[in-house]
Amino acid sequence: MIGIFDSGLGGLTAYRELHKLLPNEQFVYFGDTGRVPYGSRSHEILKKYARQDIDFLRTKGVDVILAACGTVSSVVLDEIAAEYTVPLVGVVDASVAEALAATQNGIIGVIGTGATISSGAFAKKIKAARADAQVVSVACPLFVPLVENGYIQRDCTVTKLVAADYLAPIKASGADTLILGCTHFPIIADIIGDLLPGVTLISSGAAAARAIAKEYPTSDAVGSSEFFVSDSPVNFDEVARVFLGGETVTAKKVDIEKY
Amino acid sequence: MIGIFDSGLGGLTAYRELHKLLPNEQFVYFGDTGRVPYGSRSHEILKKYARQDIDFLRTKGVDVILAACGTVSSVVLDEIAAEYTVPLVGVVDASVAEALAATQNGIIGVIGTGATISSGAFAKKIKAARADAQVVSVACPLFVPLVENGYIQRDCTVTKLVAADYLAPIKASGADTLILGCTHFPIIADIIGDLLPGVTLISSGAAAARAIAKEYPTSDAVGSSEFFVSDSPVNFDEVARVFLGGETVTAKKVDIEKY
Repeated sequence: MIGIFDSGLGGLTAYRELHKLLPNEQFVYFGDTGRVPYGSRSHEILKKYARQDIDFLRTKGVDVILAACGTVSSVVLDEIAAEYTVPLVGVVDASVAEALAATQNGIIGVIGTGATISSGAFAKKIKAARADAQVVSVACPLFVPLVENGYIQRDCTVTKLVAADYLAPIKASGADTLILGCTHFPIIADIIGDLLPGVTLISSGAAAARAIAKEYPTSDAVGSSEFFVSDSPVNFDEVARVFLGGETVTAKKVDIEKY
Repeated sequence: MIGIFDSGLGGLTAYRELHKLLPNEQFVYFGDTGRVPYGSRSHEILKKYARQDIDFLRTKGVDVILAACGTVSSVVLDEIAAEYTVPLVGVVDASVAEALAATQNGIIGVIGTGATISSGAFAKKIKAARADAQVVSVACPLFVPLVENGYIQRDCTVTKLVAADYLAPIKASGADTLILGCTHFPIIADIIGDLLPGVTLISSGAAAARAIAKEYPTSDAVGSSEFFVSDSPVNFDEVARVFLGGETVTAKKVDIEKY
């Protein structure tokens, strides 16, 4: 059984990819909708929230946990992984590997939340694997609220303006590869791609899903998926549909402060 | 001693007003920065968070509590007020009274977070006081992240575009008065005012501050102010300065999940 958690529903983009690759697997998804977003929180509070999210998934008997949250993966995952026997997989390593394989000129862009970029996690792992790589990292804190409020159409002037602002240093650097270090960002990949023609976009959630699917033996069981959230599950189906490309699912509520 | 709480730091606009009116008063402010924003949360979780916020302030021995949060004031305050002996003042009643006094044509606009507008609290209280008033309510969920990310300059194209979108129904209605039903919104009052020339803007936090100052006897003590937040207080001073018009203050951390 694979556990997946995220600050909210963005991680459903990773679940979707994983479910496609492992249709016979059992999944438990937790979205911390009562405390979303994580991208502007401190190191200390992120550690607390991540531990609670993991502890809840452990009660479900999961064999591996995907932290489908760029912020948790970047800021605290390496630090807390040693506390658990269940393997914790984040979204950083797989997307760094894919970016290094994709780049021709060694210039790699990284975008994520404020906390993700401040942590420097993507840049450090890229440089550790390839010392001569050049990394241009930019925080894009408004992308999450823009996506969550439906400003996602390819011709949306507001999101295009904000994105042009954020992506200017990436464009100027000549990067040929860009890591979307937040699971909300693939939803506006069109807008990002239009501003950076010819640049290979790596979705960190999808990359992590591919890495888990490779390592994890496909279960013989009939596939199943359970969804949990920390705020009311009312309207979960509507919002989830955006991230699941139209599929309708329902969720149950969990009091995450108890974990 | 006056307790003030908000989902984050927007309520500092109300504190600032109150501190100006009652310079010899003692204040305790709590901002729930570990769980901000409240505007998209459910009724159930808002009730839980509001109770924890109030319970924390009660440990400080406050005589009255201002819920300087449009969402809490609209969605749950009336429901939970009976649970407490300490008086709870929200931002709805005072701004409704000021709007009714200000309007000439009886058409009043209300803007707030998604949860505030869904609750219908402002509209219900306006209609209860004046049945023939016409109320036009619009949720503006992107204003909070725009303000928090510094998109606040009067000529900011992004915020102007979003605001023009949100405020179109207010403009079309012919409203002569607009309640800013969220403590973040006064920060972009310039942009809102430019789009609605001649319309009287009522800041709900400032209106509530004026109402409390009127009812509350000024203390003889030397004034003091203490600030608490639920996430790390690092950088609190920088962000707080935006809401306090330049004043520098520091904050302590409180584990709000324990209350």
